[in-house]
Amino acid sequence: MPRKSHQRSESDDARRIAGSFVAGHVLTDRLTALRARFDHAGVTALLVTHPANLFHLSNFRGSAGVLLVTADDVSLVVDSRYTTAVETLLGSEAGCPGMAFEQVASSYEETLRDLLGRCDSTPVGIEASHMTVWRYEWLERALADSGVVLRPTTGLVEAGRVVKDVFELATLREAGVRISRVMERMLQSCEAGRTEREMAAGIDHAIQTAGFDRPAFETIVASGPHTALPHAHPGDRVLAAGDLVLLDFGGIYHGYCVDLTRMACLGAPDAAAVDWYAAVREAHAAALETVRPGVRGSDVDAAAREVLDRRGLGAAFGHGTGHGIGLEVHEAPRINRRRPPTGAGQDDEDVLLEPGMVFTVEPGVYLPGRGGVRLEDDLVVTPAGHELLTVVSRDLLVV
Amino acid sequence: MPRKSHQRSESDDARRIAGSFVAGHVLTDRLTALRARFDHAGVTALLVTHPANLFHLSNFRGSAGVLLVTADDVSLVVDSRYTTAVETLLGSEAGCPGMAFEQVASSYEETLRDLLGRCDSTPVGIEASHMTVWRYEWLERALADSGVVLRPTTGLVEAGRVVKDVFELATLREAGVRISRVMERMLQSCEAGRTEREMAAGIDHAIQTAGFDRPAFETIVASGPHTALPHAHPGDRVLAAGDLVLLDFGGIYHGYCVDLTRMACLGAPDAAAVDWYAAVREAHAAALETVRPGVRGSDVDAAAREVLDRRGLGAAFGHGTGHGIGLEVHEAPRINRRRPPTGAGQDDEDVLLEPGMVFTVEPGVYLPGRGGVRLEDDLVVTPAGHELLTVVSRDLLVV
Repeated sequence: MPRKSHQRSESDDARRIAGSFVAGHVLTDRLTALRARFDHAGVTALLVTHPANLFHLSNFRGSAGVLLVTADDVSLVVDSRYTTAVETLLGSEAGCPGMAFEQVASSYEETLRDLLGRCDSTPVGIEASHMTVWRYEWLERALADSGVVLRPTTGLVEAGRVVKDVFELATLREAGVRISRVMERMLQSCEAGRTEREMAAGIDHAIQTAGFDRPAFETIVASGPHTALPHAHPGDRVLAAGDLVLLDFGGIYHGYCVDLTRMACLGAPDAAAVDWYAAVREAHAAALETVRPGVRGSDVDAAAREVLDRRGLGAAFGHGTGHGIGLEVHEAPRINRRRPPTGAGQDDEDVLLEPGMVFTVEPGVYLPGRGGVRLEDDLVVTPAGHELLTVVSRDLLVV
Repeated sequence: MPRKSHQRSESDDARRIAGSFVAGHVLTDRLTALRARFDHAGVTALLVTHPANLFHLSNFRGSAGVLLVTADDVSLVVDSRYTTAVETLLGSEAGCPGMAFEQVASSYEETLRDLLGRCDSTPVGIEASHMTVWRYEWLERALADSGVVLRPTTGLVEAGRVVKDVFELATLREAGVRISRVMERMLQSCEAGRTEREMAAGIDHAIQTAGFDRPAFETIVASGPHTALPHAHPGDRVLAAGDLVLLDFGGIYHGYCVDLTRMACLGAPDAAAVDWYAAVREAHAAALETVRPGVRGSDVDAAAREVLDRRGLGAAFGHGTGHGIGLEVHEAPRINRRRPPTGAGQDDEDVLLEPGMVFTVEPGVYLPGRGGVRLEDDLVVTPAGHELLTVVSRDLLVV
């Protein structure tokens, strides 16, 4: 299916994506950039356990696996389920030159203890936002006599992920075009008599046949009063005349997520819905208008919030205006309310936007028991402002 | 869709499931049982952060949320995205009587700090296998002057999940019947000319229209030499005459996972495939035969391994024979090789089987570059032996 879709694609970007993996020499560059951050974090090596970070540095995608990056070496540790996949990867153009491969004998923890005990580097950073307390305490005890000290770190690999490179942007552009086409078709498929769950199943199928690996998160189909729930589960409610219908879904394309929300109305919307929609659309436009290098994520949020406050709907907007998106569906940068820096909330720095950062803009209003509206696009920050990755009409579709 | 399928269902179990949630009074019983484990763990309260554990104790399903269980009280903490959903839940029959609700103001961490500071209980257990080092260290620092001490614990809620109750078994039985019907149809749909990815998209759609919330994990469709990869990603390979095709998929039904693997062959299998298949089938039968209360998970594993060893395929069987299944697709009990108790590997105790435990049996052989075979069913331990939850012919289907 992806091959067929490529042929039909009108996007130039498709041709710029050579394969589904970045070339191995790019991994070498990413590792070099990572090592340059070791000193500041007070470590001489890093144990990478977060799957998205592991993929970013190795092209390995699995539900388990650990990467040990030292000043001079890099070792990928996986269990036997992945042995053949890793051998194939490391022998291909997508393999990182010089990456060693270690197979788990008994448990990951014991293999890591042995590997760390041999590696001569200390302190070794761990990813504190991703490693569990259990694993950390086990490793600390197991290494107590080895001279190796572990040190919690945060964001070392993520710092290299927040600004997307040429390959990543090409992948995200293609993903944005593909998810937009799925949205156009799915909005047209809203009709009275279908359940939310049927709609969601149809959407997930369309996502997969459009060349995505899978949906990026549980597809949201919310109808009528359910639109008041920002994270509604599609249920057995039957779509009926007069309903607002909210579709919020995304796909993972060659590892990268896109995320899009649009609304349809089965027949003419009532006066309240028209008012909510106009307010959210204005907030969305105000947020986009604000995006450019040098402003903060919280400035983008404030622009959307100001519109909704002014229109008397500020209290109905309970979440942030957006979130970074890439290998994870929620990642840096933070596009949320300005708040005092308490240090609480992870990955939560209110950064200055830079070209190449990618995030969603998705203001919404939610009126419990009545309904709600949300409008969401993905964009990349450009030197002049922004470029939309998702391209679907922002009109409320009346079907 | 689920309503329609219920009408068609021939299973008695469907009628025993009143709704998609267990009644609120069952949650009260689960909390009482949990509190009875506090003493042994040296805690007076527990902060539940693992989503599956949270759901088991509260009927709340979200991607975030925390439960604080003290000797006398229980509080559910969620952010504003879930406020309406939680208010609806707590006002329904599925709500836990007496459960308080706390909305996150700024960050989960700050809300937890305030809640713990007020709760008068210490030490408070945290779920060490699920909480990140970052959150733990933040809370420890924030609580340093409060007199509240945090203590890592493992498996306190999981201990109440490993033996399934009547509601859970009825749900799993219905899920097993439904996934089996999907498998029968999908095996028939294997044909030369389709890609693995197309097959996988069709399977995921069939899972959702069969009434499941969603696939339980990334559906595996592996064909030809790809069958040698235990965790293959469905790709662009086109199914061809002579191929072995492995389908391994599952669904989440009212929160509970089932997981099933069968094989088809496009035309007559060659001699090697016939041999592998016969060996795996014999290993699978030997494992099932072993299941009864009082044996260990490792005994079940040993029975399968002994067959494959004897047939010269022991080295081709790199993973464990099975895994517990329920709210998570991999949970206790452990059905794996006997190994010295090093304390490494989480949730990894080699328990004595008890009636009501649910797990997969899935021996396999993998010959890199050539191919592989796996056969998987889900079962519940009964007083007399076992009851299969999945019911599909174990013959190799030649299509």
